[in-house]
Amino acid sequence: MIRLCIYGGSGYTGQELARLLLNHPGAKVVSITSRRFAGVSLADVYPALAGQTELVYTNDPPEALAKNCDLVFLALPHGASMEIAPIFLKAGKKVIDLSADFRIRDVSVYEAWYRTHAAAALIPEAVYGLPELYRKEIRGTRLLANPGCYPTSVILGLAPALRSRLLDPASVIADSKSGVSGSGREPQIGSLFCEVAGGFKADKVGGHRHTPEIEQELSCLAGRPLTISFTPHLLPLKRGILSTIYAKLEKEISTEEVAALYRGFYEKEPFVRICRAGQFPNISSVAGSNFCDIGVTVDKRTNRLIVVSVIDNLIKGASGQAIQNMNIMQGLPEASGLPRTGLYP
Amino acid sequence: MIRLCIYGGSGYTGQELARLLLNHPGAKVVSITSRRFAGVSLADVYPALAGQTELVYTNDPPEALAKNCDLVFLALPHGASMEIAPIFLKAGKKVIDLSADFRIRDVSVYEAWYRTHAAAALIPEAVYGLPELYRKEIRGTRLLANPGCYPTSVILGLAPALRSRLLDPASVIADSKSGVSGSGREPQIGSLFCEVAGGFKADKVGGHRHTPEIEQELSCLAGRPLTISFTPHLLPLKRGILSTIYAKLEKEISTEEVAALYRGFYEKEPFVRICRAGQFPNISSVAGSNFCDIGVTVDKRTNRLIVVSVIDNLIKGASGQAIQNMNIMQGLPEASGLPRTGLYP
Amino acid sequence: MIRLCIYGGSGYTGQELARLLLNHPGAKVVSITSRRFAGVSLADVYPALAGQTELVYTNDPPEALAKNCDLVFLALPHGASMEIAPIFLKAGKKVIDLSADFRIRDVSVYEAWYRTHAAAALIPEAVYGLPELYRKEIRGTRLLANPGCYPTSVILGLAPALRSRLLDPASVIADSKSGVSGSGREPQIGSLFCEVAGGFKADKVGGHRHTPEIEQELSCLAGRPLTISFTPHLLPLKRGILSTIYAKLEKEISTEEVAALYRGFYEKEPFVRICRAGQFPNISSVAGSNFCDIGVTVDKRTNRLIVVSVIDNLIKGASGQAIQNMNIMQGLPEASGLPRTGLYP
Amino acid sequence: MIRLCIYGGSGYTGQELARLLLNHPGAKVVSITSRRFAGVSLADVYPALAGQTELVYTNDPPEALAKNCDLVFLALPHGASMEIAPIFLKAGKKVIDLSADFRIRDVSVYEAWYRTHAAAALIPEAVYGLPELYRKEIRGTRLLANPGCYPTSVILGLAPALRSRLLDPASVIADSKSGVSGSGREPQIGSLFCEVAGGFKADKVGGHRHTPEIEQELSCLAGRPLTISFTPHLLPLKRGILSTIYAKLEKEISTEEVAALYRGFYEKEPFVRICRAGQFPNISSVAGSNFCDIGVTVDKRTNRLIVVSVIDNLIKGASGQAIQNMNIMQGLPEASGLPRTGLYP
Repeated sequence: MIRLCIYGGSGYTGQELARLLLNHPGAKVVSITSRRFAGVSLADVYPALAGQTELVYTNDPPEALAKNCDLVFLALPHGASMEIAPIFLKAGKKVIDLSADFRIRDVSVYEAWYRTHAAAALIPEAVYGLPELYRKEIRGTRLLANPGCYPTSVILGLAPALRSRLLDPASVIADSKSGVSGSGREPQIGSLFCEVAGGFKADKVGGHRHTPEIEQELSCLAGRPLTISFTPHLLPLKRGILSTIYAKLEKEISTEEVAALYRGFYEKEPFVRICRAGQFPNISSVAGSNFCDIGVTVDKRTNRLIVVSVIDNLIKGASGQAIQNMNIMQGLPEASGLPRTGLYP
Repeated sequence: MIRLCIYGGSGYTGQELARLLLNHPGAKVVSITSRRFAGVSLADVYPALAGQTELVYTNDPPEALAKNCDLVFLALPHGASMEIAPIFLKAGKKVIDLSADFRIRDVSVYEAWYRTHAAAALIPEAVYGLPELYRKEIRGTRLLANPGCYPTSVILGLAPALRSRLLDPASVIADSKSGVSGSGREPQIGSLFCEVAGGFKADKVGGHRHTPEIEQELSCLAGRPLTISFTPHLLPLKRGILSTIYAKLEKEISTEEVAALYRGFYEKEPFVRICRAGQFPNISSVAGSNFCDIGVTVDKRTNRLIVVSVIDNLIKGASGQAIQNMNIMQGLPEASGLPRTGLYP
Repeated sequence: MIRLCIYGGSGYTGQELARLLLNHPGAKVVSITSRRFAGVSLADVYPALAGQTELVYTNDPPEALAKNCDLVFLALPHGASMEIAPIFLKAGKKVIDLSADFRIRDVSVYEAWYRTHAAAALIPEAVYGLPELYRKEIRGTRLLANPGCYPTSVILGLAPALRSRLLDPASVIADSKSGVSGSGREPQIGSLFCEVAGGFKADKVGGHRHTPEIEQELSCLAGRPLTISFTPHLLPLKRGILSTIYAKLEKEISTEEVAALYRGFYEKEPFVRICRAGQFPNISSVAGSNFCDIGVTVDKRTNRLIVVSVIDNLIKGASGQAIQNMNIMQGLPEASGLPRTGLYP
Repeated sequence: MIRLCIYGGSGYTGQELARLLLNHPGAKVVSITSRRFAGVSLADVYPALAGQTELVYTNDPPEALAKNCDLVFLALPHGASMEIAPIFLKAGKKVIDLSADFRIRDVSVYEAWYRTHAAAALIPEAVYGLPELYRKEIRGTRLLANPGCYPTSVILGLAPALRSRLLDPASVIADSKSGVSGSGREPQIGSLFCEVAGGFKADKVGGHRHTPEIEQELSCLAGRPLTISFTPHLLPLKRGILSTIYAKLEKEISTEEVAALYRGFYEKEPFVRICRAGQFPNISSVAGSNFCDIGVTVDKRTNRLIVVSVIDNLIKGASGQAIQNMNIMQGLPEASGLPRTGLYP
């Protein structure tokens, strides 16, 4: 039984890790931290878990926590992970970081979009944790950079087409829409029910921090540098991201052929499903599960490929993918503990 | 492996049975019926299940279906079950009926609130499937009447207090609020998003058909006939029922004592949780799970007991409870296949 | 043109006052205060008002503001109004207070439920601003205590029946459900979209501060002291309160007769509508308007009267009612500037 | 007082016309039709209007209705208007058609996307009712084709940039998101609360019928033929459309310059508001009002213009715009009866 620490356990991704890991047959959370809730039981903060866990939030220092675990999930804000990760690594533990701190390979790009990096020396060994692209590298790493939620939906949505050189790399536009849990559990006016319900807006136009992460991976797939327009929006729902992706086709191809190409690319993937040609996915089909569902069409009138991909931002977009990565890193069955039947209606 | 038939599988309770049973280690759905979707695969109607089941809706006659299953769930409208149940029973199969047809012991009461009964002879052997009250009887029956969603929340909310003779039986008021999935998947104006979102109303004041079912069971618990005011309301959310229940206390007792009484009563129950004295449950803590959460308080100013109970109407209020009953009837572990960690946020 | 000051203008009730008064033909907001947004234009905080107002939030002291207005609305937390009201009164201005500070006639009751009162000497002259009951007194007052949102829905729902001595005063139960805007615009975890959407809970069981206000007015109507059970709940919607009210009947009466009694009682009221016998109101029918809609039924089985009343908590339950009161105090047409056609769907 | 007929008054656009016109000082609805609700009062179908209108739905033939009105609004499905419009025109009445039947100037394009046209001879005299572009033509017409909701948001969002030849016409992508009221009030599974809430999906990818209408007007503005990618999506909210529009810039220009250009273009428009450079609009700022709010940015990294425009689909996207057109056609003040202060929160 693998012993886990959740470092930063009071936000939605930390809680989601705890919730999902309750059903994991091969791993067990032994500690969960929170400054605000230190001394309070997890079930008190999160009554849905009443009767199912004895965990109590702790504020113990990372050095102490590292002694009693095999692997730590860092569910911290950007900038905080880079301070904590080295402590666990030094203690010989594996680290899965859910922040952006180790996702960007070029530290100058990271620093342009985020802040000065305090542990840049670790970046070269960090593995970008998208199992569909980096399964082999994930297996051997001790420092895993878990992908962002938006990037997961966009990269999975474009990977087969870019690898096959179908697309004009200068033409990619990703119009993404996310549920509110992506904004975290910190109280702020913009996340209040009265501000969100009945509303819809673009979150950040032309400059969201997930842009360099997406471009890094898409460039890799395309085999040449690629710049995208990426616009995230805020949906009045709790969980889920839907990305609608547009790109010019450089080859003539039919919708059926693209669907077949995607189906082939993801054939052995346990958590990617391709819709039938002409069908498109709904967030409600993946909410509560670790699936990414993808639909494709070729718009003959404009010669564009249009891809729609959906994930649950807290599961495949964060905590579920982190567990999938843990399973791979630890040699467990990859789907262990991961939900396949979401909640609908 | 127990072979199951879901008879009436296109509504929300039928779908929920199918969804939950995918995760059941000891039972397997072998057939699922729908007139409208005959020939269509379950995953096409319900894309959340894509890749997880090969089931195709059938319109085969019940006689044929009975040959290949051990137990049937009837997820049919009231009045339809009484026609189908005898066919499966005659074939030697067990029946779990999710309609009201076999819940009311006094056929004249049933006929006053519903319609003429076509299989009244079967009523005496039907067992009311609330495991917390009738576990022993459930074990031996071949015809189980699965409780209504509102009744489940009200009866579990009052059982300990009524059994202990704490309450004036003439004083019980149950003010219940249900999510929209309780209205089913049939298209009707009142269930449209634009009619429901941002709205809230009483569903039926002073005459809802669940009243006699609730009164039958509460009278039983109280040991004397009991008439209640029961008002259901329609919440702008998908899943969940919350019942706020009021009754005059006939004995002096503190909130802590009532909480202790409830905790004792449900001590060994796998799916009932009692909140700490002074705490009250939220629908979001049980949505997606088979739990019933209950909070109690004694209002000293008015000498009333106030109970708040919550369930997921599709799980503990319907399909989950049906599976719990199946587990008991078949000698399986009672919690098999039943979700404990719901979905929050 | 009456010159108005909105003191405390950044919360939902302050904003709603500003929004509604834009359409008022006989009054004009000349100043609006906010500590947090001082110097920021109202339209920047509240983009729905862009292009419609030049107002800029100010943090000027009340003494200065009093010089340039005829009447002030205090949209402040309980406890703050009692400090500010005397300043405006001393300057010879009229005060409409939307907090609870001047609603409770018995200062010891106020202090038991709230806090020490700093301006108790003003209480005797304050008028409780429910036009349907106190129109004459409102006309002449300089200090108006605008009713609470829950109390408005409960008192209007019971007034005709209590005045007619139909009810057992010991038997009244009010089960109320409110939208989230009632919790204000202060960021707090419990008001976040992810906490509210898909959830429903009792807000405070057996001890909400609106209880003494409701009891004061109901006792008045009944002509004898009356204690109630009042349970507020939190609905996953933005605007609206629905109260379901139960009481034992002391006289024999039919649903039709009660409906006629209510219709007669409110015959000349511009903002109360009585549903046809057997019909019940929906929050969506009053959201965005100043109406209170009421439905009644006599439950013969239990000999109870059941009343359902709905209001928009921000309009008839707060800012709209405050404007209605201003109109009366200033001799303007009572319905001036008040919305009748809400927003549906 | 202009006498109006609403032909097709039971859907959301027909109801919205009735609701808005209650507040119109210069026009009055004298008849409203519905096959389903003939003989039922409008207020019974739509309780929010109780006490405010005596209108009763009628099923009278159009010839009879034409005798008593000056102007008719046709709120009918596509294909039905073309049958009814000629009857009113022949009787000498003006017609405002909210369907697509007279929007497309090239009948062969209409017939390719919709169906055979039964009144093609009328098309040349029909005026496309976007006041911001065709105010002069609207003034003199007797047959007005009221724009579609999606087209209104996209065309207003692009008009200034296209007129100024800023954009590569082959590069336009409109990613639109609409509330559910756009799907109408006909009961269908896809519009049920349980299907919509918590979900989000593309509605039709690469082939929505609003495409030719958008292309017709954008081509006009650009002065050359233009083909777009247009993807509508279904938001879990009742009212509102947000369109995110992308196009390659052909000239170098800054965000501030584009904002100034837009501000100049719409300077005298009563119902278009331009956000400050770098700010973007929220559906909740226009819901309940006739405004179109627009935000713009220049994405230097990709050399694209990104425009975000929002409207209330039932008001500026349908019934409000129809009334704005009626005001122009009848020489009334253009903003008469049109709401400016929507409902927020």
